[in-house]
Amino acid sequence: MAGPGEFELIRDYFSSRFQPDAESTSQGTGVELGIGDDCALLIPPAGKMLATSVDTLVAGVHFPENADPYRIASRALRVNLSDLAAMNAEPLWFTLALTLPESSDTWLEPFARGLADTAHQFGITLVGGDTTKGPLSITIQVTGACDKPLRRDGAGDGDIVFVSNDLGAAAAALPLVLGQMNGSERQQQLADAAYYFPEPQFGTARAIGEYASAALDISDGLLGDIGHICNGSGLGVELYLEKVPQAELVAEIKGNGADALEAALTGGDDYQLCFTVPEKHLAAVAGLQLPLTAIGRMTAERGVRCMLNGEPWQPHGTGYRHF
Amino acid sequence: MAGPGEFELIRDYFSSRFQPDAESTSQGTGVELGIGDDCALLIPPAGKMLATSVDTLVAGVHFPENADPYRIASRALRVNLSDLAAMNAEPLWFTLALTLPESSDTWLEPFARGLADTAHQFGITLVGGDTTKGPLSITIQVTGACDKPLRRDGAGDGDIVFVSNDLGAAAAALPLVLGQMNGSERQQQLADAAYYFPEPQFGTARAIGEYASAALDISDGLLGDIGHICNGSGLGVELYLEKVPQAELVAEIKGNGADALEAALTGGDDYQLCFTVPEKHLAAVAGLQLPLTAIGRMTAERGVRCMLNGEPWQPHGTGYRHF
Repeated sequence: MAGPGEFELIRDYFSSRFQPDAESTSQGTGVELGIGDDCALLIPPAGKMLATSVDTLVAGVHFPENADPYRIASRALRVNLSDLAAMNAEPLWFTLALTLPESSDTWLEPFARGLADTAHQFGITLVGGDTTKGPLSITIQVTGACDKPLRRDGAGDGDIVFVSNDLGAAAAALPLVLGQMNGSERQQQLADAAYYFPEPQFGTARAIGEYASAALDISDGLLGDIGHICNGSGLGVELYLEKVPQAELVAEIKGNGADALEAALTGGDDYQLCFTVPEKHLAAVAGLQLPLTAIGRMTAERGVRCMLNGEPWQPHGTGYRHF
Repeated sequence: MAGPGEFELIRDYFSSRFQPDAESTSQGTGVELGIGDDCALLIPPAGKMLATSVDTLVAGVHFPENADPYRIASRALRVNLSDLAAMNAEPLWFTLALTLPESSDTWLEPFARGLADTAHQFGITLVGGDTTKGPLSITIQVTGACDKPLRRDGAGDGDIVFVSNDLGAAAAALPLVLGQMNGSERQQQLADAAYYFPEPQFGTARAIGEYASAALDISDGLLGDIGHICNGSGLGVELYLEKVPQAELVAEIKGNGADALEAALTGGDDYQLCFTVPEKHLAAVAGLQLPLTAIGRMTAERGVRCMLNGEPWQPHGTGYRHF
């Protein structure tokens, strides 16, 4: 009865795309009651902890205002899924609080499609939401099931610091994504993938879950984020910058000098894992045959100390500043 | 290391106010790990369902931009708690996604205090959050434990429709809250209470949990919201408008005519319960000795039909329009 309001928006664009299918009945997903009541009703998996995280993406701050809505949805959900991965949790449910300036079919249709495609790919179910009128922003809260959590506060003195895959792609991608620079077709593709389709590192988290003493996802840049492991664990770290793996796009856009290094060290949005491994588990981690690189060592001395080819090195920035 | 960013904001203003105290250790609240990691880690209560709901409040839409931050926090959390109450769930945890134009101590201090006071009053724990820069808006997601959920889709033909307490106070309060009208000191107090301190109806929900066939909280106005019980249950409703209990403030501000009736029927934000009771449980509900009023009856015929002293009555509006 409430006219073309939030109820219709949610129902039309989201409910229909997030109906439980044959594979994911209420038993399978633990969803007793999904979108449309005062609350969703959820049955948590027996004997497991729940891991939950919330992130807001604001237009013009966390993504370009006029970006493709399909890609905005992909990025928004993947960024949140990365927090589950970093905790070594398996995706269960998410909610969407969407604030948008106007109820526009041309925006909502691709956005909902992007959200549904991403949710399907990672096996997570939309269970509730809210739609309000205002400047475009997207708040997603993800919940997962967790057996062996990877916390930030478990690193030990002497543990080796690893990162997954390579760093700096999203930072290098930014001028291409914002249209401030024209790249080759391949560079545009790499930039698009890095910025809008970052890969939550579920597989890596699962593999290192037995061995890692602490972990997080690199969302605000390696040098800023590793400080959280240091603070949480009451330690410091020594990083060997020449070992930090740089993404292909970094060399393409930033060259091979200080700019490239800065992108890999302080650029945010890569969502790779940074984690620590005690000496006794190093052989097991090497045996995983995953693209993991040792880049430093936790130390009793506090602070983040950077060495480049044996010389102390001082970065210009330390990560993304939110204010 | 990330400068005066989101980490500092969250830590300084929220973490310190939401430390588990002696009464609420990790066992008590099920919080294994709270604010500050990639995810919160939560231990769900054994053998219960979880109820979860998310709501966004946008400045200038859901509260006045320059309102007292303490009151904004109270309203934001209470509005969300009301969804738990309407589902007959007991509060466990909540998250806060806060978008604000600037990191201002004079705003954050009272906001955090209002949030902490409200959370303490209702026994709910802040377990995570995000802080972003942008136009002021507040997204809260609440999670509760639920044994006997009160859904919208359980009403039966012939069930009697009840509301808790009285309606229209928040609608009558609006011109006073917005400063469009000057009231007496008592009127201002009533308006302040109605708008910024609405009472989630946990006690009533618990009491009627055994007897009610369907329920929701009236957030968008009775006539709009009862349509959700009708649609969910595949029924219609006949309402007897002369029976709808009107709040004291309605008569004070709107008089006793059609304006007053409209405020009670279509004004949002009262967060009273509307619920249906099968005939066989009417005596038990009467025996509860709660301020509940029978205002109508569910019917096989679809639609919302209003009768005023035996005559059909057509409202001008049907509830708050979000767009």
